[in-house]
Amino acid sequence: MQPERAWLAWVRRAAAAGPPRRELRLGIGDDAALLRPRRNWELAITTDLLLEDVHFLRARDTPEVCGRRLATRALSDLAAMGAEPLAVFLSTAYPATLAPAWPRRFYRGLLQTIREAGAVLAGGDVSAAPAPKILCDIVGVGQVPAGQSLRRGGARVGDQIYVSGILGEAAHGRRLDHRGSTARTARDRAAVARHRHPRARWELGIALRGRASAAIDVSDGLATDLHHICRESRVGAIVDAAALPAVQLPLALFGGEDYELLFTLPPRTRLPQHPGLTRIGEITPARGVWLRLPGGIRRRLPAAGWQHWSPAVTY
Amino acid sequence: MQPERAWLAWVRRAAAAGPPRRELRLGIGDDAALLRPRRNWELAITTDLLLEDVHFLRARDTPEVCGRRLATRALSDLAAMGAEPLAVFLSTAYPATLAPAWPRRFYRGLLQTIREAGAVLAGGDVSAAPAPKILCDIVGVGQVPAGQSLRRGGARVGDQIYVSGILGEAAHGRRLDHRGSTARTARDRAAVARHRHPRARWELGIALRGRASAAIDVSDGLATDLHHICRESRVGAIVDAAALPAVQLPLALFGGEDYELLFTLPPRTRLPQHPGLTRIGEITPARGVWLRLPGGIRRRLPAAGWQHWSPAVTY
Repeated sequence: MQPERAWLAWVRRAAAAGPPRRELRLGIGDDAALLRPRRNWELAITTDLLLEDVHFLRARDTPEVCGRRLATRALSDLAAMGAEPLAVFLSTAYPATLAPAWPRRFYRGLLQTIREAGAVLAGGDVSAAPAPKILCDIVGVGQVPAGQSLRRGGARVGDQIYVSGILGEAAHGRRLDHRGSTARTARDRAAVARHRHPRARWELGIALRGRASAAIDVSDGLATDLHHICRESRVGAIVDAAALPAVQLPLALFGGEDYELLFTLPPRTRLPQHPGLTRIGEITPARGVWLRLPGGIRRRLPAAGWQHWSPAVTY
Repeated sequence: MQPERAWLAWVRRAAAAGPPRRELRLGIGDDAALLRPRRNWELAITTDLLLEDVHFLRARDTPEVCGRRLATRALSDLAAMGAEPLAVFLSTAYPATLAPAWPRRFYRGLLQTIREAGAVLAGGDVSAAPAPKILCDIVGVGQVPAGQSLRRGGARVGDQIYVSGILGEAAHGRRLDHRGSTARTARDRAAVARHRHPRARWELGIALRGRASAAIDVSDGLATDLHHICRESRVGAIVDAAALPAVQLPLALFGGEDYELLFTLPPRTRLPQHPGLTRIGEITPARGVWLRLPGGIRRRLPAAGWQHWSPAVTY
């Protein structure tokens, strides 16, 4: 790595090169950044780790894909709150032996992704890493009108469950990409593109304000994320397997990294104008998450999927 | 470590056990936390890494001291902006073999410190660590009336330079503590206490709003931090060595972790009512930071001190 001061100067220039954001009153270069949300709006704040050998492998994932993925994880959390992306902060620790190309390419992927969402890089921290592993932690900051944020805990019995996009598509693309398989069909090519260029659904999150009773982003697989909604809302759910917009059912249920939105709408609420929304089930009084299979068979869906606690890469 | 869900439940309970904070509209348990600053106030946001073998040694530093130190780093950055502490977010990655007592004791130290400052734990992320090293990243969030924040770039020629507390005291205490020396004098005992129970100067930061032309916290040693003010303000400075409230001159200049405030006051500005403030020098038109030694000798002060980029523990 290059000397600390030269690196920080590069980051500051790269952050300043994009379009400014009025809400950011002070960016990189002081003890803290200053953000002023619009009047009567609240700030949504989320953090996400991206660690080498846990969330990515240096020999396999390009720095650009890592940067885009980390940015998308933060933006996707903001989307699930109905928040408009504003700013990100990035803390990174690098091994001393790392060539400067890695962080530069990583930042380029990250900055491209946050700029597409209208957000700016507002600060962060930097350190040497204690082991030869790259460590990153992102903070995503968005704004949402007070009282209009989407929560996990608002689902009520009888609400309809919807999801955006094609579940498991990113996991399918990841498999193809990691195997080095040629993507032959249009569906395979779309899946690889989805894995390499993930995109959070913040426009959908904004459109769901005032409509959805609950929302979460599908980052750990549908099964785990629907369990989160049910637990926080103290309800159950039944999902119709035949209705799932899925590449393959197991990937849709447990695949992870879809960055789609899973949400509930009260009966007779109008769906927002957004492509690729599918009704997949209904909120029930009986606790637990159930899958309705062809032939009327019901199976309990475990809250299994991406496990952050696992000591090794699980995909 | 215990299972992920059990650990997150513990964190959520521990965070909720303290006094609430009106500005935190939604805490741990959703896709993001929601914060609403007071009307016409801005949010100050800062991040700080704390990595095993870079910022602490597990065999030497207790978990409580690590927790207090990380919290103090964030609170000290907020103090240097004149911001009132509101909330922190904590991302952590632990080795799979770590006994649960470490993170619990770490959180207790951290929560105690942020509660003394009136702040709450509002969120974070958790992961397995890719190497047997503990990794932590804190986000500090504070609020400050719009337009009243303290910046690094506002020092003007003729402004007087002040510092709070005794510089190098924490570094002196750290040395005594790490050597296992008995603290014999009152000064030694105060130094050890200062190292083990660091405390950010947020009340002073608040009192400096509308008075100080520039401010920074002394976390990397006076020399480095005064250089930051001079660079951002495009001025120089001269410091009177005899005036420095120091345990030992080298520790005061290069020691680090003082978490005191270094600030500049325009001529004829009244000093706030706060114990232990000392005038140490003056802002000059000639660039660079100079030290005035007894006998009228001047020495250029290098921007040397705590280097975050260094691959090994440097203290």
